[in-house]
Amino acid sequence: MEEVADCARAAIERDGRTILSYGSSGGYAPLRGWIAERHGVEPGRVLVTNGSLQGFVFLAQHLFGSGGGGRVLVEAPTYDRPLKILAALGVEVEALSMDEEGLDPDALAAALGSGPKPAFLYTIPTFQNPTGRTLSAERRRRVVELAREHGLLVLEDDPYSLVRYEGEPSPSLHELDGGERVAYSSSFSKTIAPGTRVGYFVLPATLEADLEALAVSTYITPALLSQATVYEFLARGNLEPNVERVRRLLGARRDAMLAALERELPDDGDWSRPEGGYFVWLELPGGASVAELLARAEAAGVTFVPGTDFYPGARGGASSARLAFSFVSPEEIDEGVSRLAELLRDGAGGGRPATAAGLRAGRSPG
Amino acid sequence: MEEVADCARAAIERDGRTILSYGSSGGYAPLRGWIAERHGVEPGRVLVTNGSLQGFVFLAQHLFGSGGGGRVLVEAPTYDRPLKILAALGVEVEALSMDEEGLDPDALAAALGSGPKPAFLYTIPTFQNPTGRTLSAERRRRVVELAREHGLLVLEDDPYSLVRYEGEPSPSLHELDGGERVAYSSSFSKTIAPGTRVGYFVLPATLEADLEALAVSTYITPALLSQATVYEFLARGNLEPNVERVRRLLGARRDAMLAALERELPDDGDWSRPEGGYFVWLELPGGASVAELLARAEAAGVTFVPGTDFYPGARGGASSARLAFSFVSPEEIDEGVSRLAELLRDGAGGGRPATAAGLRAGRSPG
Repeated sequence: MEEVADCARAAIERDGRTILSYGSSGGYAPLRGWIAERHGVEPGRVLVTNGSLQGFVFLAQHLFGSGGGGRVLVEAPTYDRPLKILAALGVEVEALSMDEEGLDPDALAAALGSGPKPAFLYTIPTFQNPTGRTLSAERRRRVVELAREHGLLVLEDDPYSLVRYEGEPSPSLHELDGGERVAYSSSFSKTIAPGTRVGYFVLPATLEADLEALAVSTYITPALLSQATVYEFLARGNLEPNVERVRRLLGARRDAMLAALERELPDDGDWSRPEGGYFVWLELPGGASVAELLARAEAAGVTFVPGTDFYPGARGGASSARLAFSFVSPEEIDEGVSRLAELLRDGAGGGRPATAAGLRAGRSPG
Repeated sequence: MEEVADCARAAIERDGRTILSYGSSGGYAPLRGWIAERHGVEPGRVLVTNGSLQGFVFLAQHLFGSGGGGRVLVEAPTYDRPLKILAALGVEVEALSMDEEGLDPDALAAALGSGPKPAFLYTIPTFQNPTGRTLSAERRRRVVELAREHGLLVLEDDPYSLVRYEGEPSPSLHELDGGERVAYSSSFSKTIAPGTRVGYFVLPATLEADLEALAVSTYITPALLSQATVYEFLARGNLEPNVERVRRLLGARRDAMLAALERELPDDGDWSRPEGGYFVWLELPGGASVAELLARAEAAGVTFVPGTDFYPGARGGASSARLAFSFVSPEEIDEGVSRLAELLRDGAGGGRPATAAGLRAGRSPG
């Protein structure tokens, strides 16, 4: 916190005339340059937005804003906010099946082989929200090949990949593809601080120009103070040490959640074992109703997001839950999983009364 | 600049845990409270956004995002960005006439007496963009009465009113109405710094909730670092002294522009004499074409925004220009007006070659 405070002050003292004026609608130029270098593209292909969700809104507006609908492919379950944005625009969202290795490429191939051409595929290949799953290296190559064969635009949403606790990273779809077919989005929410609201897209050049025009029509200039503060933080070499700190802190929380699940649900239930990110995906034992469990859990001071939130039209996830371990301590996680397991064992029974308000933080915004 | 730098540092040191996390989608709570007190409303009626244009986008999405169009009344000419946002949503925008005293209430009454009910009236009553004109006190009362009679929602956009160089302020429409029918928007772009991108809306409570839901779906949380920096700046009592500084600085620029116009165009042309704000509206002598003048002016190193940009569908303004005096020095303004006048006297002639790049800044973003 002290370092970010000093970065904010230093950024304005160094470049206040730029930061405090109207400026580049595509983002603070030094930050655009830093991102461009990191991803090996020209700065003009980088759009820095007020959080990466804002960039998704621009993409959706660009493709569907003039009405007439369209078709988008997603892995299911997937991040709920893009689903809501697409639904509000009247877009047909098609759910592709996934398993422990992530999106099923055969399901993608089948979807590409029938129906109108999709506007894009939205995917979170690494430590997916909500499942924590990671697309295998082989499947990544297959997805990129399919995108090339079918001229499909892919949006690779990648906010979590640096938050890895074990295992080796695979190349991103964007790297495998070279950035022709794959647009890439990420942010500094998980690696510096969510409150900075600095996200970015790496895009084909013409698409960048189209989305930047929407940015101008929406906010003229993004929040340059936040962007310059992030840039200062990066330029001082703080990113890697801070990511290390995040890995240690959140890795212990993931370990606590997996250990508690093993202990509490030894014989039933099924859950993901993420190598990074924020989330464990739990399939409830015996096909229990997640809506019913959530009501009883909240009465017992524990919360999570029901699986139904992550399926287009809520067509799925009725017996699954996203458990977030990112925001609460190992001790709270341990206690929270204990209470959940007790509720599951009790079936429709009462459960313990609410005591630990801290456990409510399990409903992380992602 | 130094003071803003120190405010940013101090804000994070004081309240970093809040500022750097996901947080209130409606804005940084202390800033919401400050704005609420200033306008005499509950904090829940204040929505703080990444620049006030973003709030306009939310309002337009809320009213027209699901398709089907609608009808909006505007004074003409008016700020070009809202016109573009409404046009993109397929909204029918109806231009109401105005004169030196601002929007003509009779035109408003006539529009309300025929056609489908308008979704709202968009107006900038004080130091209007692009004309610099101010709605008279009597007309303000009339507009509020008409809004009540017809159940009309009014959006009063008020970014400039504190930037007053002479004369006495009239009450805002929001004050006259009590906030039932009149939504109010403003920002700190003109009073602290545009780069902070902190704007706000004061809304009827149900409308606030609807627009805040769109904010969540767009960026989860606004740029809290900017908002907390603005709050720190306000809490230190910096607003009034800074507004005084802005008044002195920009007042001299307005004086320079009016003096240069008097000197250079003594016998023809007609222009507004704003008591505040950023803009002078110039009707070109002899009905000259503004498109043709702009091309020649840019070749001579002077720029402005053609009047056509400020009319729905460009149906008007073909012989008028918005001259911004906010961003250039009195000397540059003097020279710029001289060159423009020379081009007007030359008619279709050549003009001087480009020399003073600084004059290009006349194309202020507003």
